[in-house]
Amino acid sequence: MFPRNMWYVAATPAELTRKPLSRRILGERLALFRTESGQAVALEDKCPHRMLPLSRGKVIGERVQCAYHGAEFSPDGKCVSVPGQADLPANVHVRAYPVCERFGMVWIWMGSPEGSGEQAPCSIFEFIEKEVWDSIDGYIHISCDYQLINDNLADTTHVPFVHPTTLGIRDVSRTRSLQEQPQGGTKISLSHEIQDLGMSMRMRLLDTRLSPTFENAFIRLRGAREGQSLDFQLDYIFHSPVFWIFRPTTREANAAEATGLSTDSMIMITPETEHSSHYFYKTCQKYAPGSRSETDYWHEQTTQAFIEDKHVLEAQQENIGACDLHDYSLVSFRSDTIGFHVRRLVRKLAHAE
Amino acid sequence: MFPRNMWYVAATPAELTRKPLSRRILGERLALFRTESGQAVALEDKCPHRMLPLSRGKVIGERVQCAYHGAEFSPDGKCVSVPGQADLPANVHVRAYPVCERFGMVWIWMGSPEGSGEQAPCSIFEFIEKEVWDSIDGYIHISCDYQLINDNLADTTHVPFVHPTTLGIRDVSRTRSLQEQPQGGTKISLSHEIQDLGMSMRMRLLDTRLSPTFENAFIRLRGAREGQSLDFQLDYIFHSPVFWIFRPTTREANAAEATGLSTDSMIMITPETEHSSHYFYKTCQKYAPGSRSETDYWHEQTTQAFIEDKHVLEAQQENIGACDLHDYSLVSFRSDTIGFHVRRLVRKLAHAE
Amino acid sequence: MFPRNMWYVAATPAELTRKPLSRRILGERLALFRTESGQAVALEDKCPHRMLPLSRGKVIGERVQCAYHGAEFSPDGKCVSVPGQADLPANVHVRAYPVCERFGMVWIWMGSPEGSGEQAPCSIFEFIEKEVWDSIDGYIHISCDYQLINDNLADTTHVPFVHPTTLGIRDVSRTRSLQEQPQGGTKISLSHEIQDLGMSMRMRLLDTRLSPTFENAFIRLRGAREGQSLDFQLDYIFHSPVFWIFRPTTREANAAEATGLSTDSMIMITPETEHSSHYFYKTCQKYAPGSRSETDYWHEQTTQAFIEDKHVLEAQQENIGACDLHDYSLVSFRSDTIGFHVRRLVRKLAHAE
Repeated sequence: MFPRNMWYVAATPAELTRKPLSRRILGERLALFRTESGQAVALEDKCPHRMLPLSRGKVIGERVQCAYHGAEFSPDGKCVSVPGQADLPANVHVRAYPVCERFGMVWIWMGSPEGSGEQAPCSIFEFIEKEVWDSIDGYIHISCDYQLINDNLADTTHVPFVHPTTLGIRDVSRTRSLQEQPQGGTKISLSHEIQDLGMSMRMRLLDTRLSPTFENAFIRLRGAREGQSLDFQLDYIFHSPVFWIFRPTTREANAAEATGLSTDSMIMITPETEHSSHYFYKTCQKYAPGSRSETDYWHEQTTQAFIEDKHVLEAQQENIGACDLHDYSLVSFRSDTIGFHVRRLVRKLAHAE
Repeated sequence: MFPRNMWYVAATPAELTRKPLSRRILGERLALFRTESGQAVALEDKCPHRMLPLSRGKVIGERVQCAYHGAEFSPDGKCVSVPGQADLPANVHVRAYPVCERFGMVWIWMGSPEGSGEQAPCSIFEFIEKEVWDSIDGYIHISCDYQLINDNLADTTHVPFVHPTTLGIRDVSRTRSLQEQPQGGTKISLSHEIQDLGMSMRMRLLDTRLSPTFENAFIRLRGAREGQSLDFQLDYIFHSPVFWIFRPTTREANAAEATGLSTDSMIMITPETEHSSHYFYKTCQKYAPGSRSETDYWHEQTTQAFIEDKHVLEAQQENIGACDLHDYSLVSFRSDTIGFHVRRLVRKLAHAE
Repeated sequence: MFPRNMWYVAATPAELTRKPLSRRILGERLALFRTESGQAVALEDKCPHRMLPLSRGKVIGERVQCAYHGAEFSPDGKCVSVPGQADLPANVHVRAYPVCERFGMVWIWMGSPEGSGEQAPCSIFEFIEKEVWDSIDGYIHISCDYQLINDNLADTTHVPFVHPTTLGIRDVSRTRSLQEQPQGGTKISLSHEIQDLGMSMRMRLLDTRLSPTFENAFIRLRGAREGQSLDFQLDYIFHSPVFWIFRPTTREANAAEATGLSTDSMIMITPETEHSSHYFYKTCQKYAPGSRSETDYWHEQTTQAFIEDKHVLEAQQENIGACDLHDYSLVSFRSDTIGFHVRRLVRKLAHAE
């Protein structure tokens, strides 16, 4: 169950070169490449003559040439040359998918052809066009239903168990009982706000022991002691059906906001098939502008944590098998409230189609 | 087709540690582990919250903690803690399977829950609790229906062909024509006796050339010459549906019983799925009590032979495919008599359910 | 869709030894071997007793002995011995397939048993029994429908794209528009002639730039310059459903026929399953009789090109999936004319059954 009439991420800009990339998106095989002039192109990955994947072909100028009999296709999918044959067969083409580049990603429209002009890629990422946002791109393939990834991101109480040596702050699991009663002023709080197509969450942990990723950075940058209690705030945003922003900030108790360490992550999931996903992300540290080593640090720590998630998610999918997630009656914990809203927002979008 | 209301072997004692083992038995996925106090536990391998295998979790005291959100389960399968959540969701549990340790193995009851108390693990192994029985445990995974393994063990005429360099005494294939008319006093005899749930067989080969495994031991221990003819007797027992004891003895002609070399093997098969099996065994030499090198020798020779069987059994299963064995009308040889009784005893047990 | 009542190639002579070979042909598993006296034998690869593949057995004299219980089968498939059992079970046998050796290959008849005597292996190869034909045998496994291989061989316009560093003469793709109007006397021509069960094609390229395989040989043997234009002629023959001969000749413009470099290739495809094929071939150079290095050169170049084809064919099959080729409405180019006739000749043969 995927919504189709929307822009998904197809690739990072660096993945798109003159050597075509073969990738499945929403179950369809695509040839993704960049022409000589730099245009990003996504074509159905099947030459209509003898069905060789066009992704095995060669980009020549603004066209891709099939590796079998040399037929050439323009970015709109039209067959524009059959070597040695003056009279082209009529109306030969592959499906071309609308592609655009925004927010430092390559986006694709897999829905009904007329719809792409009416929408833009997910608006929650517009902020990165308004600020200096020095980030690193990441990609992980995860063999699970994209909705399991949403569940994972929605329920942060997993972090002390899945990420004990990276992002997993122990007290996060204590937010479980609080989510229905945000307690401003207390040491732990979790609040959320539901919008039409998304949600915003805020978690606050005051005077808490941080996890290694956060603590090590704070010791290195701000001279804290190992084991020192600090304040932690996580603002995160979901936009249906597959887009997330995570903004953790660490600070000394009662210190000015500017003394905190803040980072941003964008996560953009693209269903590959019903039971596998592309997981794109961008990480950015904002506490040491221009420091490549700090930018790398945050990217490596985040990547490590995402790979820890991948192991869990794939074991979960394997145990679920090829059935639909919704065929199972699962037990719920209090921390599933956000995940329920997320699933509801995804269903809403899918059913609207 | 498996009988379910009975005790199967789940693991060797050494396999059960505080690091959970994931194993399928009768098609069901289990998490098998030992708690801090040493209790053996078998739980359904699926956290009811989000279906992560519990075998990925951690044993903490007497509980196993799910590796995803930290829910804890006691040996009876009850969820007894969700970190940070005071009010546990009602009635959350996984199936817990009765487990017991006897005869130096860990046994599991996969049948209807009320039945486990009425039966005990297979009684033919009780002898090892009454004598000093210094054995080594073995485990082999075999990708075939457990009934093919029964066929293999029932029809010993395969040994000169499958085990020529280990256990395969040449004259064993000559027992084929004798099984209906045991001929005490002759040089070759094979007799069997059928009980309610099992069978006992006795094979005698007088004045015969032994196979390398037996001959080498006899040369080493009793000073025989290479190629010397010796007497061989094999007593073996089947207990439905998957239990076997093999007791070969080698002796010089007309020598006193005590001068023979005797060994024991217990074989306990556990169906993993319809077409794959766990093959547990214990080997024990009785001719040189306390000699580790002789104990090792017998274990290595037996293991080598069982791996030779594995190759045949998997090739056979692959040729049969995913069909039921009984869909085939196979040709029978005279030596299949014992195997027919074995299959009949298995069916009897399965149909009784 | 395979025609069955005909002779296919089962193996090269060198593949047939006293160690049985397991091979599937037309979906059926076979044990292929040579007896002590040298007779080629093909038996159903399933002992009727317990279904072990007979290809795991041992050839003893004129029989194959099953590796499980030692039953022996004669070349006609009859079970002629069960060790230790005087009274053989009645009427035990496996299917034996007629086999013959001709044209330096081992042929098998998979059709209705009575038919093998009425036909002979494909007559287009009779020429090699009438001349000195010093060739090398090749075998490639290709995971695709044999009809995709026929398509590949029928439409030579793929060569500049698939074989640019070996056989792929650039101008071959220019023959695309010419096939309906052979233009004798012009610089490029392609003609074909359809027979009852096959086709003959002739392609001529005058004053053309050769591809590396042909040019390098001509430079080495005839002292041409790199880049020199030469004349190229390819005569090729198809015989339904899976047999091909290719005869390329290179020559200096207006030079005597004897100064040309000629080679021959025989190609014999045997369907393994609906979606995989055995690809047998023989290559022979005729321009330097007795020169092993030239014979090797041609074999290596051809093999390299066939492996290039294999990569394309398997990618094509993977994109088509497990569906029938004919379920797809494919676009046609002008160069598909020969391929259409080939497919029609195959269908004709298959439907006649």
